[in-house]
Amino acid sequence: MKCIRCKKEAEVELKSHNAAFCRDCFLLFFYNQLNKAVKQFKMFDKEDKILIAVSGGKDSMSLWSALLELGYNTTALFVDLGIGGFSELARSKVEAFSDRFDAPLRVVELKKEGIPIPEVVKKIKRPACAVCGRIKRYYFNTEGLKGGFDVLATGHNLDDETSRLFSNVLHWKMEYLEDQSPVLPSEEGLLKKVKPFFRLTEFEIAAYAFFKNIDYLTSGCPFSKGATFSTYKRHLNRIEYDSPATKIDFYQGFLKNLRPLLNKKNKEELTRCRVCGYPTFGEVCFVCRLKGLA
Amino acid sequence: MKCIRCKKEAEVELKSHNAAFCRDCFLLFFYNQLNKAVKQFKMFDKEDKILIAVSGGKDSMSLWSALLELGYNTTALFVDLGIGGFSELARSKVEAFSDRFDAPLRVVELKKEGIPIPEVVKKIKRPACAVCGRIKRYYFNTEGLKGGFDVLATGHNLDDETSRLFSNVLHWKMEYLEDQSPVLPSEEGLLKKVKPFFRLTEFEIAAYAFFKNIDYLTSGCPFSKGATFSTYKRHLNRIEYDSPATKIDFYQGFLKNLRPLLNKKNKEELTRCRVCGYPTFGEVCFVCRLKGLA
Repeated sequence: MKCIRCKKEAEVELKSHNAAFCRDCFLLFFYNQLNKAVKQFKMFDKEDKILIAVSGGKDSMSLWSALLELGYNTTALFVDLGIGGFSELARSKVEAFSDRFDAPLRVVELKKEGIPIPEVVKKIKRPACAVCGRIKRYYFNTEGLKGGFDVLATGHNLDDETSRLFSNVLHWKMEYLEDQSPVLPSEEGLLKKVKPFFRLTEFEIAAYAFFKNIDYLTSGCPFSKGATFSTYKRHLNRIEYDSPATKIDFYQGFLKNLRPLLNKKNKEELTRCRVCGYPTFGEVCFVCRLKGLA
Repeated sequence: MKCIRCKKEAEVELKSHNAAFCRDCFLLFFYNQLNKAVKQFKMFDKEDKILIAVSGGKDSMSLWSALLELGYNTTALFVDLGIGGFSELARSKVEAFSDRFDAPLRVVELKKEGIPIPEVVKKIKRPACAVCGRIKRYYFNTEGLKGGFDVLATGHNLDDETSRLFSNVLHWKMEYLEDQSPVLPSEEGLLKKVKPFFRLTEFEIAAYAFFKNIDYLTSGCPFSKGATFSTYKRHLNRIEYDSPATKIDFYQGFLKNLRPLLNKKNKEELTRCRVCGYPTFGEVCFVCRLKGLA
């Protein structure tokens, strides 16, 4: 198979784009998709201070790498969850990347915060991933605002977004559909959030990480019993196999056709946590309650 | 496994209803689902003259049988497509049913109308199923109105409806989504249309047909190269297998949450065919043009 751009031997075939690329042309394609996403949704520009949420995994590490390559002003934020060897390994990957590219990195340690995930999970009877997600969001927002960042970027890819959309559509979870977008504007006490990889698949990001020799964490968190949307990802992959480009059409079609019909219902009024000032529905926010500060 | 209703040996397991039934209790369940659909969408009542579109297949024959059993005023309409042995076999099944239950039946012969499907397909370069569907709809509407019928009932089941919905949602075909409903009101020159089986799956209808000893056509039309939505049916069956009741939730959720948001766009104005009076966008309707009457 030949590269459709330069006719050299192809290394990557992308059925959904009806294309095959050599390494160099694939990277051009990759940056092009990333730039398209950033521009289409006015995510950020070269003036903005971007905080990247990094976990040590393929997607966030690749996002960090690609935004650095493209010359954006980035700082990574790693939340050390305190999950024994898993968190240690993740942190070592993140720190090694930071050293290798001399890239700014901030770390929040949940142990120092008094709420390491293993202890939190023992205490409260909710799914670990949901609780952990809320805690991480708290620190992304509070650290981001403290540090004067303009925007928070996460590594969510097309497979993440479409499997989430698929689940929300199959069960018509209208309130979640309203919140699904590659960009969510800043609100009082919350950073603007963007997903620059929303046009790129897991496969394409893995190819980028491979070509760029990015060392990332491949083991899953011991607290997640099978990623939430993995079933839907599997189904969508089968559909995509039968009809290439279904995923991107499904997601872009949603943004174009359905999302404008969804009127933001008046959300319950957020107040500020009386301990830390974080937006909350109650008097004291989730994290301060976990810390026993209520 | 025991029947959840009477504790006799179960013959049918229905995971989506978290149930298993013996033959008699399954039939009660079946009529109950049918009645629910009819009432929820005010499809028809005992006073209405119902025209049932029958093809000789499992779904339409079962609908005919069930509506007769429940004491509705029904007449079946069979459109003989003139497709050699296929149409002859279909017609023989339909006529045998009519004889067996002394049930009123009308037949339209496309040969006599001058537009048998094999000739039509040769003449015009469009997918056979789409053309055939339009011709059948023409006769369902014109015969129905001529005969003074109040409503046209078709055998579309939950699998038909959800696979169509699935396809329309994956590609966000908003204009098709607007038209997707278990009931479509009558319009000038068009009968009210209802789908009383929309809550019942193919499997449930096949079980009903088996228990009622209904002889139906099992061979597919030689002109259809794999039913249009069969791929989506396959995907949905896999999803249903992983999470029972997804299909019915998906469809009912659509009717409840999304459909009310879809504003009927002002449809292009229909005029009447100057030959036969059928609603059309042009001067002469599709069928009259096929007949060379333009």
